[in-house]
This record gives sequence, structure tokens and C-alpha cells, in this order.
Amino acid sequence: MAVGNGKRRGGDRLVVLGGGAPRRGPGRVWLVGAGPGDPELLTLKALKALHGAEVVVHDGLVSDEILDLAPASARRISVAKRKSRHSYSQDEINRMLVAFALEGLEVVRLKGGDPFIFGRGGEELEACRESGVECLVVPGVTAALAASASAGAPLTHRGSAQAVTFVTGHAAKGGEPDLDWASLARANQTVVIYMGLSMAAPIAARLMAAGRASSTPALIVESASRAEERRIVTTLADLAGAAAALSGPALLIVGEAMALAQSSEQGAGEGRPEIETLIHEARA
Amino acid sequence: MAVGNGKRRGGDRLVVLGGGAPRRGPGRVWLVGAGPGDPELLTLKALKALHGAEVVVHDGLVSDEILDLAPASARRISVAKRKSRHSYSQDEINRMLVAFALEGLEVVRLKGGDPFIFGRGGEELEACRESGVECLVVPGVTAALAASASAGAPLTHRGSAQAVTFVTGHAAKGGEPDLDWASLARANQTVVIYMGLSMAAPIAARLMAAGRASSTPALIVESASRAEERRIVTTLADLAGAAAALSGPALLIVGEAMALAQSSEQGAGEGRPEIETLIHEARA
Repeated sequence: MAVGNGKRRGGDRLVVLGGGAPRRGPGRVWLVGAGPGDPELLTLKALKALHGAEVVVHDGLVSDEILDLAPASARRISVAKRKSRHSYSQDEINRMLVAFALEGLEVVRLKGGDPFIFGRGGEELEACRESGVECLVVPGVTAALAASASAGAPLTHRGSAQAVTFVTGHAAKGGEPDLDWASLARANQTVVIYMGLSMAAPIAARLMAAGRASSTPALIVESASRAEERRIVTTLADLAGAAAALSGPALLIVGEAMALAQSSEQGAGEGRPEIETLIHEARA
Repeated sequence: MAVGNGKRRGGDRLVVLGGGAPRRGPGRVWLVGAGPGDPELLTLKALKALHGAEVVVHDGLVSDEILDLAPASARRISVAKRKSRHSYSQDEINRMLVAFALEGLEVVRLKGGDPFIFGRGGEELEACRESGVECLVVPGVTAALAASASAGAPLTHRGSAQAVTFVTGHAAKGGEPDLDWASLARANQTVVIYMGLSMAAPIAARLMAAGRASSTPALIVESASRAEERRIVTTLADLAGAAAALSGPALLIVGEAMALAQSSEQGAGEGRPEIETLIHEARA
């Protein structure tokens, strides 16, 4: 194609083909959920959007295996948080997406999980709308769904989990998250805490102080769906101690239905190789 | 393959191939999320599981387009709720899954959305475990994610939605759902009500009575991600009236972040044809 060769040239938006008609219109921003990590948990639509990308702006959690699905000619830009050097602010990311689209490029903003669950996709969408840039959204499998599938423990369950709530353990201003502890402490519901590993101790303490039973089953899933996934089954009382053993991206899940969860050592849900085995068996 | 021709024969589990070794082990149950409806929102893993299926036990909401992805030889069983004739009870479905697996078959239990979000997958998983049948879970894009993507309104959003809660409007014993109205009425969170269309009036009344502002933005999405998707943007005060215009499977979403939502008439998020256009453009 005439553009998308990795170089940004503002002048070649209206590529004239044989008949003299403009080849295409203005650029667009696609907010695409890459799913939890396992490339097989990409949707077909996400895959197609990647195939059409001219620029891919991606988080640190998106694996090379997934990034390789974009055309070799597509420019790849990591906006991962970095400790050692400059990290892009959300505002800088917003402006970058809009700028590429205004150049006429097909921009894929590739985010771990789903763009609209703790992905700040809403802010990027608003920036596009304010600039008159078309923004399309492709949902993805958010990490909580992958974690519960791997552990074999449902997020909702008759009799023990009539609701599920997703919150973040990451506070906007640092420090402890400011959550509605009284609501989250009620029994018979599942609470999923994204980015909560380093805050496991205060979160567990707050939930128990607000009345959630210390014996409530809890699950920690690190790197859900990835080859290096680890799951620890524990209780609310022991959550903080268990969390101390992990350091990667992790979810905390608290609720009665987590009594069904199986730890990594128990084998549980499924392993990534198994589906390959199944396919080969089934195809034999 | 020697089995999976649509007939159930208990005796042919150990198919002896050339070398005289048993071809395969016992059957398994795969709980597979088919996503919200659009076949492009299937994951690659779900597609692979379908490709390997010998029996597909599916809900009514799973489209023929998706069922056609299983081998022609696979037996297909609908356990859709029917008004006119016998519907399978959950217990009957559980026993069916286990029975097929014990015959040695690869059984795909195909469910709309995600198996562990209001899908009763946990009960099927428990039935398998109790019978010693291996059960593997493939997560899917749950309807709430597809609805928010289509409408262009995030489920979590800095400043206006610090949490999202999924509940069901369907009460186990009929009548009004028994929910934690005080918790759901708090501001700055998104509440997604699955299967809530017919209960929109009492749900809205309860939320307002518990203190949620009547001006809170609300969104109704019918048939999220399907060609016939319809979205209505309203407020909590007008939710019941708006819901009366719809009759299909629908989600109610209430929360400040729904101020960003666009109705079907506004075009909004994305249409299914557009990605095809994009792909063709990008490939040109």
C-alpha cells in the first residue's frame, strides 16, 4: 500500500489510483482489546484490525507474539510505563493517536484485556471525538474472565455469587485505593481487584474491617492465560501473605465462588498446550 | 474420524489404529464462551475448540453462523429455553454433558458471552468434577463489553466510574430481582444489568429510591454486536419507558460514564461492515 511503510508523510493522504478517484478517506483510531495475553484469546475482529494497522500504539503488557500479527510495515510504538526513562502521559498518548489519524493513518491502539475496563480507553475516545477523528472500539477478553476460566471458578454462581464487581487497587494519587468498602464487604458477591497486588494487605484489611468474613475464599492470578500464569488459592485472611510471593501483573479475586478455584499446582482449568493436542487429536 | 458422526455409540471408544494402540483417552467437556453474537468476536481459542467438537450443546442465543464453525459431523443439541415444548433443566444439561464425555466424546458446551458471567457454567463445571470428567474453560467477550464498545462509552472512566458491577435482572424465583440497591445506587460507578429488560421499571425505581440520581445517564443495548443491534441512550428516570420499546435480549447500563454513549441513530462505535471495508482498504 502507498502508506504504512513506517514513515510518516503528511502529504500522501489522497492516493490517486487508476480511475482518478481518491483511494481513501481520513485516518481512524481503533481501540482494540488484545485480551489477557494468550494470543489465542484475541478475537477474530482484533486480529483483522491488527492486519489493517498502519500504526500500532501498544501497552507494555501486549506480547511480541501479538504485535507480530500486525503487518511488518506498520510502525510500532510502545507507550509502556518505564522507570528508567520518559513514559508517555495519557495526554501525550491521546495527542499521538489523534495526530496519526489526522495524517490519514489507520491507527490501532492495542491494549491488554478490554479497552473499556481499566484501560483508559474512554479518555482516548474522548480525545478523538473532540478532534473529529473517527474512533472504533473492538472489545476484548478482560483479565478477570481469563483468570476465572483458568482457575475453574465462576465469577457469578447460583447461591454464592449473585453479582461481580471490578475495581482497581491502583489509586489515582498513589496510596491506598479509595473504594466503597461497605458495599464490597457484602457476602455472596465476587470482587475482582485489578492492579491490586501491591495493595493486597490494606485491601484485605479494609474488607475484613467492613465485615467480609476472613474465611472468604480468595484467588490470586498472576499473568492470567500466559505460559507463566500462576494461581494461588487462599482466603481473605491470608491474602496479603500469599500476594507477597508474587510480583508480576496480577488480579485479586475475593468471593465465596472462589471456593471452586484450583491453584496452578492442581493443574486446574486448562493449559495452553492442551488445545493444540485436542485439535491434533480431533483432526486425526 | 471414527466417532463424531452424529450417532452415539457407546462401544467404540477405543479405536485401534495401525499400531494397535488406543487412539485416545476419555472425553472432555469444554465450556466455551461464544461471545456476544458477532462471529468476529469469537476468540481464536473458541474457534479451535469448535473445530475439535464431536458434540456441541448450545444455547438459543448462539447463531447458526457460529454453529456452522463446528465440523459437519458434530452432533448439535440446542438447550434453548422453549415456551412451546420441553426445555432442558440445568440438571438435565449437566447430566447430558457428563454422559457424552463419559462416552469418550469431545463435548463443547457453547454459551453466549462468557461461560462464567451469568452463564451457569459453574454448575456445569461442578457436575463434571463430581463425575471425574475433565472440564476446560475458554473465556469469551461478555455482552457488557460488546455493548460498551458499540456505544462508545467506557464501563470504567477516570472521574466518573471507578468500578463496574454486573448483576442480573432475572430473579431465581421470578418476580423482582433481590439486589443490593444501596450499593448499586452510589454514584461514580457503572451498573450493568443482564437480562433486565422486562424488569427495567422496578430496577430504575429501586435505584432512584435508594438515592441514585434520576438524571444518571443510562444505556439500553439490544442484541449487542449483532447486525440487528439497537442502542437507546436515556436517563435513569426514563429507563423504563425506553425499555418498553425493545423486546430482544438486552442489557441495561446505568452510570455517569454512559454520558459518552451514542444511540444506534448516531452511528456510534462501529458497524460490522466497517471492519470489512477497512480490511479491504488496508489490503488494497
